[in-house]
Amino acid sequence: MSLLIKNGRIITAADDYVADIFIEGESITAIGKNLPITATREIDASGKLIFPGGIDPHVHLAMPFMGTFSSDTHETGTRAALFGGTTTVIDFVLQTQGHSLKEALDDWNSRARGTAVGDYSFHMAVTDFNENTKAEIKTMIEEEGITSFKTFMAYKGALMIDDRQMVALMQEVKKHGGMVTVHATNGDMIDYLVAQNKASGNLSPRYHYISQPEVTEAEASGRFADISNYTGCPGYIVHLTCEGALNAVRNATRRNQHVFVETCIQYLLLDRSYYERGFESAKWVMSPPLREPKDQDTLWAGINQGLVNVVATDHCPFMWEQKLMGKDDFSKIPNGHPAIENRMELLYSEGVHEKKITLNKFVEVACTNPAKIFGMFPRKGTIGIGSDADLVIFDPNEEHVLSVSSHHMNVDYSAYEGWPVTGKVKMVLLRGQVAIENGECLLQKGAGQFIRRNKVKGII
Amino acid sequence: MSLLIKNGRIITAADDYVADIFIEGESITAIGKNLPITATREIDASGKLIFPGGIDPHVHLAMPFMGTFSSDTHETGTRAALFGGTTTVIDFVLQTQGHSLKEALDDWNSRARGTAVGDYSFHMAVTDFNENTKAEIKTMIEEEGITSFKTFMAYKGALMIDDRQMVALMQEVKKHGGMVTVHATNGDMIDYLVAQNKASGNLSPRYHYISQPEVTEAEASGRFADISNYTGCPGYIVHLTCEGALNAVRNATRRNQHVFVETCIQYLLLDRSYYERGFESAKWVMSPPLREPKDQDTLWAGINQGLVNVVATDHCPFMWEQKLMGKDDFSKIPNGHPAIENRMELLYSEGVHEKKITLNKFVEVACTNPAKIFGMFPRKGTIGIGSDADLVIFDPNEEHVLSVSSHHMNVDYSAYEGWPVTGKVKMVLLRGQVAIENGECLLQKGAGQFIRRNKVKGII
Amino acid sequence: MSLLIKNGRIITAADDYVADIFIEGESITAIGKNLPITATREIDASGKLIFPGGIDPHVHLAMPFMGTFSSDTHETGTRAALFGGTTTVIDFVLQTQGHSLKEALDDWNSRARGTAVGDYSFHMAVTDFNENTKAEIKTMIEEEGITSFKTFMAYKGALMIDDRQMVALMQEVKKHGGMVTVHATNGDMIDYLVAQNKASGNLSPRYHYISQPEVTEAEASGRFADISNYTGCPGYIVHLTCEGALNAVRNATRRNQHVFVETCIQYLLLDRSYYERGFESAKWVMSPPLREPKDQDTLWAGINQGLVNVVATDHCPFMWEQKLMGKDDFSKIPNGHPAIENRMELLYSEGVHEKKITLNKFVEVACTNPAKIFGMFPRKGTIGIGSDADLVIFDPNEEHVLSVSSHHMNVDYSAYEGWPVTGKVKMVLLRGQVAIENGECLLQKGAGQFIRRNKVKGII
Amino acid sequence: MSLLIKNGRIITAADDYVADIFIEGESITAIGKNLPITATREIDASGKLIFPGGIDPHVHLAMPFMGTFSSDTHETGTRAALFGGTTTVIDFVLQTQGHSLKEALDDWNSRARGTAVGDYSFHMAVTDFNENTKAEIKTMIEEEGITSFKTFMAYKGALMIDDRQMVALMQEVKKHGGMVTVHATNGDMIDYLVAQNKASGNLSPRYHYISQPEVTEAEASGRFADISNYTGCPGYIVHLTCEGALNAVRNATRRNQHVFVETCIQYLLLDRSYYERGFESAKWVMSPPLREPKDQDTLWAGINQGLVNVVATDHCPFMWEQKLMGKDDFSKIPNGHPAIENRMELLYSEGVHEKKITLNKFVEVACTNPAKIFGMFPRKGTIGIGSDADLVIFDPNEEHVLSVSSHHMNVDYSAYEGWPVTGKVKMVLLRGQVAIENGECLLQKGAGQFIRRNKVKGII
Repeated sequence: MSLLIKNGRIITAADDYVADIFIEGESITAIGKNLPITATREIDASGKLIFPGGIDPHVHLAMPFMGTFSSDTHETGTRAALFGGTTTVIDFVLQTQGHSLKEALDDWNSRARGTAVGDYSFHMAVTDFNENTKAEIKTMIEEEGITSFKTFMAYKGALMIDDRQMVALMQEVKKHGGMVTVHATNGDMIDYLVAQNKASGNLSPRYHYISQPEVTEAEASGRFADISNYTGCPGYIVHLTCEGALNAVRNATRRNQHVFVETCIQYLLLDRSYYERGFESAKWVMSPPLREPKDQDTLWAGINQGLVNVVATDHCPFMWEQKLMGKDDFSKIPNGHPAIENRMELLYSEGVHEKKITLNKFVEVACTNPAKIFGMFPRKGTIGIGSDADLVIFDPNEEHVLSVSSHHMNVDYSAYEGWPVTGKVKMVLLRGQVAIENGECLLQKGAGQFIRRNKVKGII
Repeated sequence: MSLLIKNGRIITAADDYVADIFIEGESITAIGKNLPITATREIDASGKLIFPGGIDPHVHLAMPFMGTFSSDTHETGTRAALFGGTTTVIDFVLQTQGHSLKEALDDWNSRARGTAVGDYSFHMAVTDFNENTKAEIKTMIEEEGITSFKTFMAYKGALMIDDRQMVALMQEVKKHGGMVTVHATNGDMIDYLVAQNKASGNLSPRYHYISQPEVTEAEASGRFADISNYTGCPGYIVHLTCEGALNAVRNATRRNQHVFVETCIQYLLLDRSYYERGFESAKWVMSPPLREPKDQDTLWAGINQGLVNVVATDHCPFMWEQKLMGKDDFSKIPNGHPAIENRMELLYSEGVHEKKITLNKFVEVACTNPAKIFGMFPRKGTIGIGSDADLVIFDPNEEHVLSVSSHHMNVDYSAYEGWPVTGKVKMVLLRGQVAIENGECLLQKGAGQFIRRNKVKGII
Repeated sequence: MSLLIKNGRIITAADDYVADIFIEGESITAIGKNLPITATREIDASGKLIFPGGIDPHVHLAMPFMGTFSSDTHETGTRAALFGGTTTVIDFVLQTQGHSLKEALDDWNSRARGTAVGDYSFHMAVTDFNENTKAEIKTMIEEEGITSFKTFMAYKGALMIDDRQMVALMQEVKKHGGMVTVHATNGDMIDYLVAQNKASGNLSPRYHYISQPEVTEAEASGRFADISNYTGCPGYIVHLTCEGALNAVRNATRRNQHVFVETCIQYLLLDRSYYERGFESAKWVMSPPLREPKDQDTLWAGINQGLVNVVATDHCPFMWEQKLMGKDDFSKIPNGHPAIENRMELLYSEGVHEKKITLNKFVEVACTNPAKIFGMFPRKGTIGIGSDADLVIFDPNEEHVLSVSSHHMNVDYSAYEGWPVTGKVKMVLLRGQVAIENGECLLQKGAGQFIRRNKVKGII
Repeated sequence: MSLLIKNGRIITAADDYVADIFIEGESITAIGKNLPITATREIDASGKLIFPGGIDPHVHLAMPFMGTFSSDTHETGTRAALFGGTTTVIDFVLQTQGHSLKEALDDWNSRARGTAVGDYSFHMAVTDFNENTKAEIKTMIEEEGITSFKTFMAYKGALMIDDRQMVALMQEVKKHGGMVTVHATNGDMIDYLVAQNKASGNLSPRYHYISQPEVTEAEASGRFADISNYTGCPGYIVHLTCEGALNAVRNATRRNQHVFVETCIQYLLLDRSYYERGFESAKWVMSPPLREPKDQDTLWAGINQGLVNVVATDHCPFMWEQKLMGKDDFSKIPNGHPAIENRMELLYSEGVHEKKITLNKFVEVACTNPAKIFGMFPRKGTIGIGSDADLVIFDPNEEHVLSVSSHHMNVDYSAYEGWPVTGKVKMVLLRGQVAIENGECLLQKGAGQFIRRNKVKGII
């Protein structure tokens, strides 16, 4: 089986040229002008952009939550991702306090194996770091190919580890060549504000926003950077949303430190005004919450300054019925919003088309950096010889509108309903197979593979 | 004429894979595994790295100085550059106060045209910004393909423009799609300190160092960032050397600004102890001077943080006899040191081999970023389809020692005499022609072309 | 002649108590409860506050300007100051470029001697620093008792010195125990923006504001702090107005430096909206211009943080007819506004009464710090034994309204017309003499003395 | 009973003059030149300085610890304080987790009442903030006159409150006009490092230092400033030791916030080299530990910049036998060192005599600011009419040497053994009574009073 994609404008994090791409089996074997090669199938990509398959390093699929699950399974979620040009996702395995990492991994494997349509990997969320857990770190990195460890500075009693555990974890992870990622918000402060608002009868979704002020994120981001610097362990802050937090990272760089920073597409595009819509605002209840327009400016600038390295989604959809669990109490609204399918198109339209970022930067933050930072490069994240033929053929001019009526995520509303977008994913390849074409997904359940990841160095 | 380079490990700013490169005429037309193509010549690059030709955006060739010239001409300088893996340089045209930009350009063309062995472009140094000069900006950008304008905040009465001119220049350059680059040191302060030291009989080279303290650079860098932010004109600081100056840029980023930063190889590797060698120190008399070890740490970190975008040389060699002009007065020592040939090997050896930066980052700062920032991309700066076949075949393991006895720069000493280096340039191609092979330069005088540059956007 | 002021609430920068003050001749000789002393006159101050006489270290009296003079002479200005509770002012002698400091001092003496009603001293504004001027520094400090030297980073060709002169001046001033004060704005940038606005036909007063953006002050403040730190000479920034400039000072403190900062009452109270009043805005044309509300917040906070040490006025009034010189061109509007009489009452009302600052802080920034910083302490600036009996008896509750109809400054409008104030100066003593009582000035022209000042240390 | 102190040079935070002080009963009633008053006793203070009685707002007397107590009781501690010129101390009541504030206060009262020789007050250390504790805050402030609440961000399980409790406490304290003070170090990180060092067999006192790196204090100081800013409650950081922590406060001031900062005399004078003395280093085992010389520079500068407001001691002495409890394990060494008697003389000698700070600043940070910040002003902290006659008569020239052989603290070693000091406390008055004279303490056990404190405003 071979494939020849002709005359596309190929964009990588570094390059921009028109050429043909030749694919044999699962990987790219040649790129060139008028390649003197014949293939099983030829695809004309004239006038189209060709991106590496997107990598969304922050998704929650079939995540257990209060007796139910986030509404996209590994099947529906990775399929929707493919429709949106994202060929690989990294999902989060959540250790249950009192249980081992291995148990949690088994649990997640039971849901993901044989069901994912697109490729996937796992972060391991360490929620209970003790001597037993410590012993599993090396195994996870060397035997399971899971090299990133997620931590929560919030959700005390459920997911949070304290700073003592954080230091200990980072020392251990560093020793074995891994990286620690963090949900950096001050959980204690937030818990207090939530309780206080509830006690005051402030129960609508806007109090979710009010209970997580910028300072809670700025403080924790700075604290994490401090611990990362002290231990020397590579660190990565997930879903950073605001100026205060980015300034905390910026201050940390004064001591010759580097901390990786991820933001999510929603923090670049949406603001706190979405919490002024009554209970409909529940659609955008997520943690951290949406912020101010000034924070959006900071994040766009941060991308071009090299401070913000990744644009992900924190995709974690819930059906409206599930959101209604918090109808009378914002703290019971399942956190998260659907975006796995929309990330690439929104980032292109609002970033590249609006001239906020370059095409190369688009690929860098949406494809290449996630692969490099998390140890999947050069197999994933770029268009290079020998890399997996994960490709997106993209029409930069086609205008369309996002809607629940046309999306493929398993959720009954869109967070971007009616949002006009310039640029559309036309065709997607996963490891050389046509995954999306003519608005159809041609891959079956189980087509997705688990991607083992390499050790990381903390520089890219 | 075609060329097939087989089995090299190809490194770009984004990629890293083993493949063949096929070159037709001046450009790369295909890259792939086992390309089914035959070529006029095949080169085996197994076990070698292949880099894009290096770009040194800061060199001074045949620069007029006190009745003489810097000792490398466009011929010898670009030839030495090729030996060191640098295929394109950007030289500085210096406007004479009271004369037009065009006159200066004609003057430089008279020396460069038909003599350069490697490719070259020009920055235009604006030393006298007035209504006449203003009118020439558009011409330079649109007709001459010179899109970057160098300014000096030092050398009052000779090269310096004041802040009034700086604001006016930046507004004009912005209007036409150019960029302003700057030698950012406080000339007034330095002039005073030089005069004071001379008046006190402090005449040895170490007083060159003492007359340019860190604060003179930090201050001016911050001031330039302020004006760049106010005018909105893309800005680029050349040869930034120290923590104070980088912190000034870092502070500027708090207001969502981006300023490009260049450092030079010597500031990463050498420190002020070189000024403790009596008059031999004259070899390293350059402006700004070498700094402290703490500044080297800051610069290496700055590269990985994305704050330092380019590693250049400020190559400006003078024969020892010329340096002797300042035997009795440090202020008469011609400023500059030879490095055009050493940059790529030193950066590889001290950066990549010592694990301070990655291979991708090496190419980014030495090849790709200069091309992108200055409007030569994608023709230059990368290994992509359609790009000029400017390539370096590099043995990552060969150990050698830098020396005047083996270098090709037209200068009778080495600034790095005896420096052990791991990694060696083995073969260099310029636009598809073999330029360097077996330690010989195969290109003739005049083989180098002037590279017209495109408008720039200030983001890459 | 003796005086006993009974039962006033005495406020110094440190203290707050009710007691009697006994004055013999010109100075305070005893303070106590029920002092067993009889005096020539007794004054009942029950229910009143007693402050040290205010010191306004930044005024321009009879300042030569385009063939005319600022409208308050040393007589009218110091008399109005007394009405407002300010007993000592520091006026600026301006060196004429090409002439000596001594000539300028003689000129100023010719206007001030024998005319001032209140006490006064001089700063020496150095506008032409050369070898001759250098030789005069010591004389000024040691023989004339003038220990502070004002510099301008703006007004090139008239008042400005460049950074070379600044470094040289600061070294010389430091050597002899003086201090350098600075008008810190980037004159080059402002000159350009003024010219540009004029060329564009933007001639109304609001373009005065637009031509001096925050960055011009922030930049120069940072630059001055740098030079002060490098030379080790005590430095003082006059009329600092904005967040950017205060942050520049704050950044400078990271290197264990201290820079004194003065703001003026108008920058605490008025904002840029005053430039939206057509040509009436000319009343508030001053340099730097009024800023934003956020800058006012920063300045109030800066006072409590110890970063802002002094609240002055930059009093420099011009009659409306004089302001009309700039009717068709904002750059011809004489700069300055009248405030010498209003400072103490406004600062009390808006600061103390509004609970932004404490009573002690009020005295500190309006009386004590100016005396200490400028070498007049303990003779001036406090209520202590042996100090000059410069006292203000103040009714903290009396409400009144500021107006040209009631003020005593020689200017035909008020910059604070109709401003309601809580707290009123009821009686003022100058060196033991009743200066103001029952709304009358009892002192004659010439009653004011020149105050020689001591060397300073840069810490207080 | 009356007293007349003649011809002393009286120093307050603002003033500096020579005069007589007249004391009737417990307070000062008159100050003046040649006061025409006769007194029961006259004291000649010619050639001497007179300071307000020192206030040490950070001492631990008879503090329960592992079944024993810190070795200075309220009797011996306040007596030693008097010998050193400190007339008032603020001791810490420590709530026991699970018990009420009132119980703790009763406990402390049982030891302090009737035993203290000098005046004292209490901070209330809140170690268990819950609904019951919350209800006691108002009582403490309004009924007990205890307006400052100490918190610990370290010592989890014993003294630490978490950030949730911190926010809640600060909201409550603010409501009632109090202030929250904090031991700001990251307890979790320190606990981990202590455990890790112990597990590695690193048991000597230097590992106490190594287990509390600068970052643990910088992080917590920034976090506390964040919470203080969010809640609006006045905040005060006790025993701040290092550049990192002071920079965290400095950064916080960018948002127009003010946080009070206390350092202690040992952090200004001693450095980490004291941990290189084998087990003798246990004498200086305290938390935070001594730091680097660069931190001393920062703290001295911070005093002059107005960022550091108070110099205290954290006096908490233990006999050598008690220190030996940690002979085989640094974590068992009782924390603390003796300094209550040495603070004023050391600060004078190393600060004023060495020209690092002025006389006024000396009084400000050692006497006046503690009184103002903590609600004891104007009764305490200054030399003013109506203030308590707490006075120190000080010979600025007498040279002596500190030693256990001459000190009066109840501890069998001196932390400053052999330290040469210029300036000596000659005589001390407490509320008009001669407390120290001719090297003897003339006051009896129980002479000291508990000082009720007023509400505070967060500005001084």
